[in-house]
Amino acid sequence: ARSKMWKKILLFGLLGAAILTFGILVGHYGIEKSPGWVRDMSRDVDESMIEQFIKEVDNKRIEEYLKELTKVPHMATSSGDEQLVKYILDQWKDPISGLDDAWKDTYKVYLSFPSDTTPNRVTVVSPTDSVLFTSRLKEKNYTEDQLHPDVVQPYAAYAPAGNPKGRLVYANQGKVSDYEFLNKTIDLNGAIAIVRYGGAGRANKAINAAPFGVIGVLVYTDPKDINDGKLSDVNETYPNSWYLPPSGVERGSYNTYFGDLLTPYLAAKDYTYRIKEADIKGIPPIPTQPIGFEDASALICKLGGSDAPSLWQGSFKCTYRLGPGFEPNSIFNNSEVQLNVYNKGELKNSDNVMGVIRGSVEPGVLYVPQTLSHSPVPPDTYTHFTIENKPVLGPSPKLYRRWRPRRSIIFGSWGAEEFGLIGSTEYTEEYYSKLRDRAVAYINVDISVFANATLRVQGSPAAQSVVFTATKQVKTPGSPSTSVYDNWIQYFNRSSPAYGIIPNLGYLTGAGSDYAAFMHFLGITSMDIAYTYDRSKTQARIYPAYHTAYDTFDYAARYIDPGFTSHQTVARTAGNVLLRLADSLVIPFNAVDYAETLEQFLNTSLDSYNTRLMEKGISMEPLKTAVAKFRTAANSLSRLIQDTDLTKETPLRIRRINDQLMFMDRAFVDPMAFPDKYHYRHVIWASRSSGVVTFPGLADAFARAVSTDSASDWDQVHRHLTIVIQTIEGAAHTLEEVI
Amino acid sequence: ARSKMWKKILLFGLLGAAILTFGILVGHYGIEKSPGWVRDMSRDVDESMIEQFIKEVDNKRIEEYLKELTKVPHMATSSGDEQLVKYILDQWKDPISGLDDAWKDTYKVYLSFPSDTTPNRVTVVSPTDSVLFTSRLKEKNYTEDQLHPDVVQPYAAYAPAGNPKGRLVYANQGKVSDYEFLNKTIDLNGAIAIVRYGGAGRANKAINAAPFGVIGVLVYTDPKDINDGKLSDVNETYPNSWYLPPSGVERGSYNTYFGDLLTPYLAAKDYTYRIKEADIKGIPPIPTQPIGFEDASALICKLGGSDAPSLWQGSFKCTYRLGPGFEPNSIFNNSEVQLNVYNKGELKNSDNVMGVIRGSVEPGVLYVPQTLSHSPVPPDTYTHFTIENKPVLGPSPKLYRRWRPRRSIIFGSWGAEEFGLIGSTEYTEEYYSKLRDRAVAYINVDISVFANATLRVQGSPAAQSVVFTATKQVKTPGSPSTSVYDNWIQYFNRSSPAYGIIPNLGYLTGAGSDYAAFMHFLGITSMDIAYTYDRSKTQARIYPAYHTAYDTFDYAARYIDPGFTSHQTVARTAGNVLLRLADSLVIPFNAVDYAETLEQFLNTSLDSYNTRLMEKGISMEPLKTAVAKFRTAANSLSRLIQDTDLTKETPLRIRRINDQLMFMDRAFVDPMAFPDKYHYRHVIWASRSSGVVTFPGLADAFARAVSTDSASDWDQVHRHLTIVIQTIEGAAHTLEEVI
Repeated sequence: ARSKMWKKILLFGLLGAAILTFGILVGHYGIEKSPGWVRDMSRDVDESMIEQFIKEVDNKRIEEYLKELTKVPHMATSSGDEQLVKYILDQWKDPISGLDDAWKDTYKVYLSFPSDTTPNRVTVVSPTDSVLFTSRLKEKNYTEDQLHPDVVQPYAAYAPAGNPKGRLVYANQGKVSDYEFLNKTIDLNGAIAIVRYGGAGRANKAINAAPFGVIGVLVYTDPKDINDGKLSDVNETYPNSWYLPPSGVERGSYNTYFGDLLTPYLAAKDYTYRIKEADIKGIPPIPTQPIGFEDASALICKLGGSDAPSLWQGSFKCTYRLGPGFEPNSIFNNSEVQLNVYNKGELKNSDNVMGVIRGSVEPGVLYVPQTLSHSPVPPDTYTHFTIENKPVLGPSPKLYRRWRPRRSIIFGSWGAEEFGLIGSTEYTEEYYSKLRDRAVAYINVDISVFANATLRVQGSPAAQSVVFTATKQVKTPGSPSTSVYDNWIQYFNRSSPAYGIIPNLGYLTGAGSDYAAFMHFLGITSMDIAYTYDRSKTQARIYPAYHTAYDTFDYAARYIDPGFTSHQTVARTAGNVLLRLADSLVIPFNAVDYAETLEQFLNTSLDSYNTRLMEKGISMEPLKTAVAKFRTAANSLSRLIQDTDLTKETPLRIRRINDQLMFMDRAFVDPMAFPDKYHYRHVIWASRSSGVVTFPGLADAFARAVSTDSASDWDQVHRHLTIVIQTIEGAAHTLEEVI
Repeated sequence: ARSKMWKKILLFGLLGAAILTFGILVGHYGIEKSPGWVRDMSRDVDESMIEQFIKEVDNKRIEEYLKELTKVPHMATSSGDEQLVKYILDQWKDPISGLDDAWKDTYKVYLSFPSDTTPNRVTVVSPTDSVLFTSRLKEKNYTEDQLHPDVVQPYAAYAPAGNPKGRLVYANQGKVSDYEFLNKTIDLNGAIAIVRYGGAGRANKAINAAPFGVIGVLVYTDPKDINDGKLSDVNETYPNSWYLPPSGVERGSYNTYFGDLLTPYLAAKDYTYRIKEADIKGIPPIPTQPIGFEDASALICKLGGSDAPSLWQGSFKCTYRLGPGFEPNSIFNNSEVQLNVYNKGELKNSDNVMGVIRGSVEPGVLYVPQTLSHSPVPPDTYTHFTIENKPVLGPSPKLYRRWRPRRSIIFGSWGAEEFGLIGSTEYTEEYYSKLRDRAVAYINVDISVFANATLRVQGSPAAQSVVFTATKQVKTPGSPSTSVYDNWIQYFNRSSPAYGIIPNLGYLTGAGSDYAAFMHFLGITSMDIAYTYDRSKTQARIYPAYHTAYDTFDYAARYIDPGFTSHQTVARTAGNVLLRLADSLVIPFNAVDYAETLEQFLNTSLDSYNTRLMEKGISMEPLKTAVAKFRTAANSLSRLIQDTDLTKETPLRIRRINDQLMFMDRAFVDPMAFPDKYHYRHVIWASRSSGVVTFPGLADAFARAVSTDSASDWDQVHRHLTIVIQTIEGAAHTLEEVI
């Protein structure tokens, strides 16, 4: 019995051991077991959350927000602006906003205002000092909005004060070539030029004029350029249509460079060293004043001299003549134009409002600040993605309460945008090193809706694919069966060697909005998203009320986006892109799309420059080689991302790939490339004067060398060619494995 | 019985289930279970491997390697240099080297050589054109090494060719103040100046002279500065001692900036745009030639004019007089000095040899290139950490065969170091973006051993702690009980507020070796490691045979490091640092030590500048605030690293901390800070002319403003103060969490 007993015990002991072993094996191999973070780190974007997000973006709420934001005029640093800063900050600090934190960053920046007491004016003065004509001091009232006392008088910000008087000449768009043309037959010394908007940057119209002896500039919007020729406020213009009334004046900042003008490359703090006002570069050297087209026609239609060339003719019901001075038959015979400008520069505190949703897993910050322009004009159409999305990202517990993006999201509402992208630029100067090393992307929404026909996106080619993904998922306003992508492709498209016909992502060349410092100064992959016109239906340069006293909530609600469904579509699109950038395991940037752009630029450069450069002994072969290297590196990185099950890769492998993608745009930055262009460092996207759509430094250097044919200018072409080559090779290295 | 049987079955069944459950629990929780990489990613440095490494560094093998490397003269791009490139490349490509890959990078660089046919010379010419004296064309032979046909003639690289003749003046060290002093009493127009090495950079001795009308410069080494006064080659100098023989001439590169002089900021490839030779900045504008002290004494001791000030007197057995011209009683009466320089610039291909050990886990590259100077002088003492360590990292299978460092290690043997750090600088220009984004550290070993008394380390404060750790583990040559640290602290020490008396890590201000482009241009945490003198035993500026024809293996073996145990100690120390940087879980950089340096600089600035700046209305309070912010961020990061069990943290958390540490030095880089100083961008460590040991831009701007008292120079002080403040604040942000 004892032995039997022992046998049984032994048997069951062995059985127990076998069961125990089995259990251990099941526990070890059968049940997934690893530190909790292993799963978090391989989590990819949640498509159902994006679907839910799209549903929740509400056009009515956007309308309400926009109404609140545009309640009073809020030019930068005005009391309206201060109220707005407080309002946004309060909203963002509210825990239900869904933001982890919000704060404001203040900079002391150099702004320019008209005098409080003495309005700028333009008069026609007879030889006996009689005033024969005076320009309007403010726009005509139609909707009460124009009567608000904080509506700023029309002026050209940063144009100097002064009281020049002289014979009037009509100088078309104020381009160098326009003044050169006039200068052939007219002595421009002591003249006042009247020019129309378009063709040249605002500041350049005066900068180009001064070397010819011009002493003052008037700028107006020709109805041909903004109103499809419409002139009459009886029934043709706002409030009867979206067209600009005859007294409307486009205000704006007359500067060439962006950021605070007294503190280039330095954040404009109280203690910061400031250059002298006299040393500011890129602003008008002579008094300049914008006027409405009603006033402009009163002057232009009385000009004497030769007829202006046909391309210079606008929509006034008269022949545009060049001057100088007025027609002998006119009542202004022998009279001169007197320009009185009383602008003054002031140091003012301007606030950015910032908010953050902290990321959970990946160390790289996704910087996705949004713009909120504190426009110098009253109630405006600048709608604000951030504030629009706030209720979506905020009080939606079922979706977001427990959501932590993989990467942090920072929202920014920038101060003093209208004075030259100042708030955003100072921010990049203050946080330069951190942004340089760790920011993933920047999404800009400035004028959210210009018109309601189609999406328009400008951006780094790196971002093309994520924008396409998002736009295929979001539907067109009022048409649940058409995607934004399918609508967009009808208005803007191009033929891609890789994809066939696709929507045309525009370039970010130049500094049109607050993306400028992120893209050009820092090299952070950026994009700018908006809804815009059907170009077949209007020739308007921009929506007609832009920067005038008619740029109001009423205007937006009646003519820009009735129902605010285009605003909703932009918010859905930008939000979709944002969520993908924030949550994707691998940052959804595409190196291959960048390669395609570089190849386009290369081909354009070869077509336009190769023959001439060969004559000069400069070979473009190394540029071909560099672009080919980039292509090879891009293909191999993209193949790696496509062919690998990245959810099975180690977190540090993913992070390494993400670094390659994040630093792709950064690799194109060369602080020495454009020593004379403040803040422009991105060799592919810097501003460009030449019309040849290719590498901007090369294009402008080539244009200059061709015009002067001087050896030192050809040297500059060679220098810029070398910079382009080496920057592209550097970017190819960035796409490669670390070694 | 059946029921009993069932009971038993039930009982054992339950028991079995309990055992199974227990087994599952043990399997799940009791045995560590996670993807294989989880452990790899939290692996820290292996101390036993470092111990093993130290044991394996062999002084005899170093001696053999150095003998091989110094077999023939190998001035940059000479056939000796080409042989050396091939030898090193073959060694590194050999699989037993332990490197994964090796290659060479070639640059077409601008070098300067004496004529092959017409040697440079200095003569004294009488009024009747008799040649009364001719300088030696080559050094006297003692050991046969001096007879090698590839020993280059003494010359001043980059000094222009020319044949000036004029009265001789003695200008001490060729500082601006020296010429100013002479200029008070002597007309320097048309004069030839003779100056001694020291006090001013080589190029500056001529650059400073030209504005006073000086037309040629002779440079010699005074026995006071190099030989502790010893003059005679009968028994006092090499080969009887380490002192310089009378005919020895220090050659060298006479340039102010580093990198290829024709391609600033661009990698010097075949296709690269080159500036004109005439546009090179920072080289002598007038012919310049180095001579031995034997020849110098023949000239100086015959000078007429007033006695030179006592601080200008050297060790010749005569009174140094100022000139101009020779003493009337001397045989050179009325004679002039004729300088014939036939140097010419040439574009030559120069190679870097590169090798890599690829990292296994972390994406960040540890860039730890080492220098191998291809000296313009024959068999030299430049010993080469890389090649010394190769056999240690290479054919040691028990230790390294299966070792993969956490971070990649790149070895670099730089070309054309002696011509201005050219190979290393071009490398940083070519791989700028990749190095900028992903390099962790740079360890420089140039002249490994100057003398055998003590370690000397210069470096970023970030690296102080890892250098201390390594030096505490390595023993002093010949003294197994004394650590390198304990020996070092006796020779160089300082009082640290945090640690008390510690070895004094020197600064990397200026561009003494190939660390320059890494530290100053890119902001990569760098260090330079060597063994050096007992300063109480010699006043020599540098080891006496430096850059002369006596700078040979024989000299090194007899007088610099008999037995090569100091070389061994440097190799052990640098290798220890390298292994720690490559393998530590958290990069062993210390932010708190950087804070201490900034506080020292702050205090020095306050002491030296605050009173005067307050008078000028410039406050230093924001600088205090910035340094305090950096301190707070540094403390909090260091506390986090100390208080957390980082092996338990997620790989991405570790990676984030490593980014904060890796980018710390990078955050001090401002490409706009020093527009006139090529390649200097590191705001804390740029070159400095002022003797005040503080922020270099501020120190030099202040010195200038004090000397001119002009408003625009005081503006520059304010500008540099702002740059320092904002750079330090940026670095503080870098040390903080991403948001």
